[in-house]
Amino acid sequence: MNLKSYLHQRQNLVNKALNRYLPLPKSVKGPVHEAMRYSVLGEGKRIRPVLALAACEAAGGTVPQAIHAACALEMIHAYSLVHDDLPAMDDDDFRRGKPSCHKKYGEAMGILAGDALMTFAFELLTHSKAKPATQIKVIREIAQAIGTEGMIGGQVADVVFASGSKKVDPKTMDYINRRKTGALLSASVRVGALLGGANAATYRRFARYGENIGLVFQLIDDILDKDGAVRGSSVEAVRKRAERLTDEGITALKPFGKRAEPLRQLARFLVTRGS
Amino acid sequence: MNLKSYLHQRQNLVNKALNRYLPLPKSVKGPVHEAMRYSVLGEGKRIRPVLALAACEAAGGTVPQAIHAACALEMIHAYSLVHDDLPAMDDDDFRRGKPSCHKKYGEAMGILAGDALMTFAFELLTHSKAKPATQIKVIREIAQAIGTEGMIGGQVADVVFASGSKKVDPKTMDYINRRKTGALLSASVRVGALLGGANAATYRRFARYGENIGLVFQLIDDILDKDGAVRGSSVEAVRKRAERLTDEGITALKPFGKRAEPLRQLARFLVTRGS
Repeated sequence: MNLKSYLHQRQNLVNKALNRYLPLPKSVKGPVHEAMRYSVLGEGKRIRPVLALAACEAAGGTVPQAIHAACALEMIHAYSLVHDDLPAMDDDDFRRGKPSCHKKYGEAMGILAGDALMTFAFELLTHSKAKPATQIKVIREIAQAIGTEGMIGGQVADVVFASGSKKVDPKTMDYINRRKTGALLSASVRVGALLGGANAATYRRFARYGENIGLVFQLIDDILDKDGAVRGSSVEAVRKRAERLTDEGITALKPFGKRAEPLRQLARFLVTRGS
Repeated sequence: MNLKSYLHQRQNLVNKALNRYLPLPKSVKGPVHEAMRYSVLGEGKRIRPVLALAACEAAGGTVPQAIHAACALEMIHAYSLVHDDLPAMDDDDFRRGKPSCHKKYGEAMGILAGDALMTFAFELLTHSKAKPATQIKVIREIAQAIGTEGMIGGQVADVVFASGSKKVDPKTMDYINRRKTGALLSASVRVGALLGGANAATYRRFARYGENIGLVFQLIDDILDKDGAVRGSSVEAVRKRAERLTDEGITALKPFGKRAEPLRQLARFLVTRGS
């Protein structure tokens, strides 16, 4: 399997589906639909959707079974970036090389476009072709991953510590980052597996893989962040830990043979970023 | 039936459930949980939850079948108020007689608490005791009612017209308000009916009632709004229209006899507000 062409093909599938699902900018709702499309379409590695699709296939499912969820995950990721960029939050003027959503459409539309992307993601999740009981599990997994025990929790800790005078220790930084980024990445894998028809034992294996690569993603980010907690001699130790976690995650996928090859290569790809 | 004691009893049930479901303010997530509780608990007529519970019972269900959805509807209503009050939106310093959420907890926490309330509402909807297929219908109804075709759409139109120089005509004002307020009120009734076990024909009757009272709520708001579009001689005409819509809504509930009495009285209560 060639990872590059696999990624390219899956990203294309996701981009086409996103373009099809996102509402068109017309009538009085035009501005918010335009802001939603601006924030989702275009650049983006689509890591969460690709993980969901790959997990679905590895669990024995097909792309159409997970495409709604894959797109919903990307819309949720986009919503979190749009709100994070707002002046009251990280106050970022640029995102993926272009003006951030609120810079282009105004702050009110930034708030509303973020709200609308999250809302639309949940609506989209009700349109998947899975059994209703599976759909409910998927919705619950995602809501938990992006709530105050997950993504929003990480963001809150970030805001609290940024406003305080205390220096953030590495353990707290780990807490923040694991939730801000790791929770949704791990959920993408679990959700894909559920939609692919995973039973309880299979699900646990995918959950293990997802947990590990979520953590690895963050560890590598810490290494790549020159102002981050990981410097000098600790880089080597962190990289070793990331490699061990990757190996463990890959081992968890053993029973799924060739079908899980994209997930294995994705894990290797994520751990070797920037090295 | 005494409406006042009925309302009082249902509001108490809802307030207790909200207090039980909302996460406690502890650990690093403390601030956002506190802001969520601050924005939901305390004052509030709980119109949406009461409508959902009353519709559930009128359709033959019981309170426990709709209590999760009832609380989710109130959390969604609270999220919309928290985001509406933000400086970039309506910039309101007070809400229900106390400082608005962002005034008390800061703007970043206002954005995050609103996001978290919506997220938590969707999670709560997956915990109802209904059949998964019904849960999915409920989640879809709510997501649609608060998306760009509903609540957010109304808010967007509001922002667009507020920033323009053109005077807003009554028809546009109607569009905005129907979506900003009416969509979620109507959905509350439909969702309650679904959770109460309504079949397709029953559902249509509740939908008719819900549609009408959503509109009536807005018409009365327009009359009560001294700066609004409804003034002088047109007050009488609008009140007549609201009464006709109320009668139609009540007529739709005819097959449900005594069980629908709370919904009938609620409709009468909503149309006589301020008169």
